Amino acid sequence: MAAKGTEAEKPENDSDRLVQLSNPNVATMKEDILYHFNLSTSTHDFPAMFGDVKFVCVGGSPSRMNAFIRYIGAELGLKCPGEDYPNICVGTDRYSMYKAGPVLSVSHGMGVPSMSIMLHELIKLLYHARCSNVTVIRIGTSGGIGLEPGSVVITRQAVDACFKPELEQMVLGKRVVRSTDLDQQLVQELMQCSTELGEFTTVVGNTMCTMDFYEGQGRLDGALCSYTEKDKQAYLQAAYAAGIRNIEMESSVFAAMCSACGLRAAVVCVALLNRLEGDQISSAHEVLVEYQERPQRLVGYFIKKRLGKA
Amino acid sequence: MAAKGTEAEKPENDSDRLVQLSNPNVATMKEDILYHFNLSTSTHDFPAMFGDVKFVCVGGSPSRMNAFIRYIGAELGLKCPGEDYPNICVGTDRYSMYKAGPVLSVSHGMGVPSMSIMLHELIKLLYHARCSNVTVIRIGTSGGIGLEPGSVVITRQAVDACFKPELEQMVLGKRVVRSTDLDQQLVQELMQCSTELGEFTTVVGNTMCTMDFYEGQGRLDGALCSYTEKDKQAYLQAAYAAGIRNIEMESSVFAAMCSACGLRAAVVCVALLNRLEGDQISSAHEVLVEYQERPQRLVGYFIKKRLGKA
Repeated sequence: MAAKGTEAEKPENDSDRLVQLSNPNVATMKEDILYHFNLSTSTHDFPAMFGDVKFVCVGGSPSRMNAFIRYIGAELGLKCPGEDYPNICVGTDRYSMYKAGPVLSVSHGMGVPSMSIMLHELIKLLYHARCSNVTVIRIGTSGGIGLEPGSVVITRQAVDACFKPELEQMVLGKRVVRSTDLDQQLVQELMQCSTELGEFTTVVGNTMCTMDFYEGQGRLDGALCSYTEKDKQAYLQAAYAAGIRNIEMESSVFAAMCSACGLRAAVVCVALLNRLEGDQISSAHEVLVEYQERPQRLVGYFIKKRLGKA
Repeated sequence: MAAKGTEAEKPENDSDRLVQLSNPNVATMKEDILYHFNLSTSTHDFPAMFGDVKFVCVGGSPSRMNAFIRYIGAELGLKCPGEDYPNICVGTDRYSMYKAGPVLSVSHGMGVPSMSIMLHELIKLLYHARCSNVTVIRIGTSGGIGLEPGSVVITRQAVDACFKPELEQMVLGKRVVRSTDLDQQLVQELMQCSTELGEFTTVVGNTMCTMDFYEGQGRLDGALCSYTEKDKQAYLQAAYAAGIRNIEMESSVFAAMCSACGLRAAVVCVALLNRLEGDQISSAHEVLVEYQERPQRLVGYFIKKRLGKA
């Protein structure tokens, strides 16, 4: 495995940590079709294509994940293959995937179910490719609570709408509750990177993961709303008191699934607005674009540092 | 409103049914930014752009919704503006939106949260545009239960993973349960269209809406799986006994939100495989493409018939 050489240079003393599945069935399958990636073990050589992957960065928007691969490719001094990095998930528009050296960049759409489909197939991809010591980071956008717009939040714990570090899922019609633990060492490492970078405010805080953007996050401006500004403020203030600094829609299943499959995972999101002061995202387009680059710059620096290039 | 003239020709005796919000706040807002559509009431003339919309078709994949607008535009004898229909949601890649005459075609991504964000903004768009008598139809893909692949299912009731016609949502940290009623007259009208069309098998059945594609639908081939083939079969057989004929990931919130805002709504999905016989979607690409056109052909015929052009 090409990966070994790279790993040996890393100043860590843990042994190779292979990506594992929490499902014995996959090892016995002759072919595995990753339908939403339009990739299959019978038509693609996963170890050759992905065996050297050490960092997977995921985010909602396909164009943002394309921008990230160009950014990280340039930062790592890699040559872009042709005019642009090709989309590996060609032939489907469910997700986009790009690769530059040891970095894979994948879009996941919006919400827990969309993230969950992507993660099932991504984790199987890494398993089939026999990847080891992989770090997965979500770089996303969010609504902040009590933060200046543009602040970056590194997630300590992903919590649900009741502020609990849990994800409830239905499996065969029964409720299953999973913990949403994230790697605390990685949180500290990323915070240290932000301090060294010194470009924008970064905080460590809890992140609330909701199933809806409007009612689910206490917005007053959706097609449906049956509560008052006062109710909303009380909910958001209670969230703040519980250590929550931002709200988004994918972190809980991301934390739960990565943890279940032994992948080190982190969530780094920029806050596009301060929800205590409003609901609509009304900043100018250029301002929002610059905000969205912040998690990319932080995680880019982290990757370069890990690879001894920062 | 340009819409009035069209409506008068329709052989229906119900009076104008304006699109309504279940939120008094929106009427008092000076500007409404539909962030995920990249549209705003202060920069776009919604009544001029959308006032004549009578049919909204939604589906997960942006390219499929582009294919649909080209199809329905041609069927209605409309001239395509330029080489292709322009994407109205230009400047964002969260959703795509196309329009041909009275038909709007919008993508919604995968899963309940992604559908819910789109619907909040779509319903507000129709409200700001002062649309009336709008029918909204989801044309999608699904896994069938006890059906030949390629069969089309018109949803009688959208049910959850416990087979109940309900959607549970968290609002300000509290559980809210909404009913997932669909318009039964529309179900019959669509079934009649399929009979007249006579091109493929169509059934009326319940549709199970899940929050995950793998564990949530009893698949044995995800990154995580802790049950057996026997457990899976028992669950799917119980679903069949409860009248469920297909499984997808958006119908419940689609039914609940359309119903809450007085929109007539229907769900028409093709079954890509028979889940009693497997989990992987392994049919040839061309076969799957033809399957995915079936809901489009059925709904295209329905729209033509409603407009007196079938």
